[in-house]
Amino acid sequence: MSEQVPVQGAEGHRVDIFDTTLRDGEQSPGISLNTREKVEIAQQLGRLGVDVIEAGFPITSPGDFEAVEAIARSAEGPVICGLARTHKADIDAAWNAIKDAHRPRIHTFISTSDIHITHQLQTTRDDVKGQARAAVALARSYCDDVEFSPMDATRADVEFTAEVCAIAVAEGATVVNIPDTVGYTTPDEYARYLARLYELAPGLAGIRLSVHCHDDLGLAVANSYAGVLAGARQVECAVNGIGERAGNCSLEEIVMLLRTRSDAHGFDTGCETREIARTSRMVSRFTGYHVQPNKAIVGRNAFAHESGIHQDGVLKERTTYEIMDARDVGLDSNSIVLGKHSGRHALRDALEQLGFKVSGDALNEAFKRFKEIADRKKQVTALDLEAIVSDRLREGAQRYELGWFDVEASTRRAPKAHVAVTMPDGSTAEGESGGDGPVDAIFGAIRVATGVESDLRQYTVSAVTEGEDALGEVTVVLRAHERLASGQGVATDILEASARAYLRALSNALEGAAIREAEELTAEAATERATPGP
Amino acid sequence: MSEQVPVQGAEGHRVDIFDTTLRDGEQSPGISLNTREKVEIAQQLGRLGVDVIEAGFPITSPGDFEAVEAIARSAEGPVICGLARTHKADIDAAWNAIKDAHRPRIHTFISTSDIHITHQLQTTRDDVKGQARAAVALARSYCDDVEFSPMDATRADVEFTAEVCAIAVAEGATVVNIPDTVGYTTPDEYARYLARLYELAPGLAGIRLSVHCHDDLGLAVANSYAGVLAGARQVECAVNGIGERAGNCSLEEIVMLLRTRSDAHGFDTGCETREIARTSRMVSRFTGYHVQPNKAIVGRNAFAHESGIHQDGVLKERTTYEIMDARDVGLDSNSIVLGKHSGRHALRDALEQLGFKVSGDALNEAFKRFKEIADRKKQVTALDLEAIVSDRLREGAQRYELGWFDVEASTRRAPKAHVAVTMPDGSTAEGESGGDGPVDAIFGAIRVATGVESDLRQYTVSAVTEGEDALGEVTVVLRAHERLASGQGVATDILEASARAYLRALSNALEGAAIREAEELTAEAATERATPGP
Repeated sequence: MSEQVPVQGAEGHRVDIFDTTLRDGEQSPGISLNTREKVEIAQQLGRLGVDVIEAGFPITSPGDFEAVEAIARSAEGPVICGLARTHKADIDAAWNAIKDAHRPRIHTFISTSDIHITHQLQTTRDDVKGQARAAVALARSYCDDVEFSPMDATRADVEFTAEVCAIAVAEGATVVNIPDTVGYTTPDEYARYLARLYELAPGLAGIRLSVHCHDDLGLAVANSYAGVLAGARQVECAVNGIGERAGNCSLEEIVMLLRTRSDAHGFDTGCETREIARTSRMVSRFTGYHVQPNKAIVGRNAFAHESGIHQDGVLKERTTYEIMDARDVGLDSNSIVLGKHSGRHALRDALEQLGFKVSGDALNEAFKRFKEIADRKKQVTALDLEAIVSDRLREGAQRYELGWFDVEASTRRAPKAHVAVTMPDGSTAEGESGGDGPVDAIFGAIRVATGVESDLRQYTVSAVTEGEDALGEVTVVLRAHERLASGQGVATDILEASARAYLRALSNALEGAAIREAEELTAEAATERATPGP
Repeated sequence: MSEQVPVQGAEGHRVDIFDTTLRDGEQSPGISLNTREKVEIAQQLGRLGVDVIEAGFPITSPGDFEAVEAIARSAEGPVICGLARTHKADIDAAWNAIKDAHRPRIHTFISTSDIHITHQLQTTRDDVKGQARAAVALARSYCDDVEFSPMDATRADVEFTAEVCAIAVAEGATVVNIPDTVGYTTPDEYARYLARLYELAPGLAGIRLSVHCHDDLGLAVANSYAGVLAGARQVECAVNGIGERAGNCSLEEIVMLLRTRSDAHGFDTGCETREIARTSRMVSRFTGYHVQPNKAIVGRNAFAHESGIHQDGVLKERTTYEIMDARDVGLDSNSIVLGKHSGRHALRDALEQLGFKVSGDALNEAFKRFKEIADRKKQVTALDLEAIVSDRLREGAQRYELGWFDVEASTRRAPKAHVAVTMPDGSTAEGESGGDGPVDAIFGAIRVATGVESDLRQYTVSAVTEGEDALGEVTVVLRAHERLASGQGVATDILEASARAYLRALSNALEGAAIREAEELTAEAATERATPGP
């Protein structure tokens, strides 16, 4: 395709990576990141070397606003972007949230497809043009860097979309992004669509074109790549490919595709690919969205070969079956090993090597948890440390905390659990319960102790590392205080990890409920949550 | 692309689906399906309406041979295919395994890339041509339907590959498959490669061209689709996209892509798409390979929208954010609900509705297990029934069975487990152990009881359905008897499910070890396991 389509608007062969893990990714069901976790992910994205971080959608809630503001104030390298519909209130909120960033960007969008204009916006094409014009102009009056997206562009009339894009360019948009909002297009169709846009709106050649593809038909990476071949120099993507429905273009796949196949077209990004594995683990842990073993680049098996079958070829010559080196995505980092006799100093050094700057009380807390784990586990690896520190980081949101529990389980009797919980007010509450199994009994006892009604929606457990004494990591998604929330817990004891995860999810639900009450005071924000963004 | 590439060799717009879940998929680390499970998956693939089932690689082990033979004898609809290198022993074994099928196919392959010829095969291009010629001729002397694959074709010299393909066609190959063995190519590059092959080997226009793409760079589906646009009329793929490393083209994605975008090019398959969700669950359960929530088509969220955000648009008009209907992939089937008072008759009817024909002893067994579950769980749904029946099906391989256990766990004391195991000889053995947590203590007690050393490699738990009393499904991958094996267990009690999964994995390892001893008698098979296939 690259031969047929004139590459206009291309500034050389550098492709910008626009990460939307914290915006589109965070809109996935059951994900509820608090500000501290979002800042931590943003810092890791900085180490990964992404060019732009879409930090959130500030108008949608005070919590989102606060997180975007915190990221804007703490991030050093990347552009920090806030999403906004074309409404003045949205653009004001986005600007207020990002204005302290070194390099702020406002991203505003409105649909150009008739199906969205008719059913979602319930307006006319003329009104859409007017809204786009006013929004870009307003955003530019605040900020030098403004991105505009015609939402659902790939299902929209290309002539009308080109008209709207031309308006955005005329009003000073610096980036125009063409979203495949519902994951409908195919690489050849998308390439033709973008080529036609360049013909119809020649002004696009003077600014940066961007692509934003969803994976409903499994084509998000291929469509993004086709977009780059057609002239786009920004790809919007998310770590582990999370996002609405089947998610967005997977960051690690498009980055490694451009790197590995730079022989074919000479494109590349500015990413430090050795940070990929760690970024993937952090996002998986904080969101509770597990990565399947056969996921490209970051799946457990992406670089593995069934023992005794493929290994022969790989041993003879790695490149017979591997086109990438596992070290290039950071999969060789599990080398640090501490034990029960390791001291505070060794722990701090190890954490620093992993990029965590921990001192003072936080170091004391981490050391205490490390000792608890090291007492039960012979070797504490880099992956274990990541899990422990991540677990501590989440403590910020803690309102309910585990005191202790006793459980009896048997195939011959019903299980019994007795649990003590430290409540948000600092008091201790105890509860007892039976159940269908020991986890159910513990959750029942927690409900008795806290007096909070909740519905369990999802429960998963995985091992952080291999071996008999591996740390277990539990993710719970539940509905409480009228909202979905997730929580994670880490321990060598799966029941302890389950109890911690459940209490964490309850705490997150409580925090979310508090935010929601605040939201109900601003009626507009509450009624306008119906638009998901590109 | 479709405009530029002449569509040669195309028989209309029907694309054949060649499923390699049981061959390439089964080669993933830690998957160890027994014959019964493979036959069950093959039957489900028949209900799904795939055109070809690659049932295995018969030369690699007596277990593989037996499974391919059992599938060939029981399958009614699809072509049953056996994989073979170009060696006479391979082709003989493949033919012997499939010869009783209604429609047998031999699939033989040899690499055409210099990197494979030099490092893996350690031979010359001339020898490769000779081997391809002899292999196709021999296969055709047994069987009317013969497929040939030049392995690693996308990294091979296209002129040489065309020469080898022309030889295969001249010797009577009915299908030629062009594998992207290492997942290296891109859609535009692959389309150009196939177009060039058609030019260099005009004989390809008279037979069926096939594509086989790996997902190392996230492009397997897009490359397969580009292959179809370039003239291929068979796509090789696997359920849930499992397979070597990052896996194969995902069956459900390519099938739904061709269906959903038939407006663009008019292609379609013969699949009954409403069987997709069930097929995906079965493969996930039997292999222990979980599907991530944001996986296209079959992920938990593929059709979901974050509550309160997207739902407004979806309620106004489904097509604003959904390009497919969840019912079209069978996601509306969770309607059957039984309870503790449901009788044997109701259970049999429900199982029949789910496509399981169960009677006699098997029905009694299933009913017993159903009652155990229904005693603890208010409602037993279709998804629960699937899990229960699947659990029973796997009993065929059972050698160690759970008698009972007692566990005490607490945050204030070390855990203790006491377990009774029914041994392969029918005797009962007991064991006691402590551990880092209750699961570790149970596994320790099982090791004491059975006297079998084993290393835990992977441990995951997920809930079959939502709610407090959901069934827990545990997958264990361990190394015992010098081989990796997986096992699953289902129960409302996570510790019980863990114990069952561990014993199942031990049993599978024992079965595998028995097969391996038999293999060591055939030295050639043992030394020739180094080639994974396309």
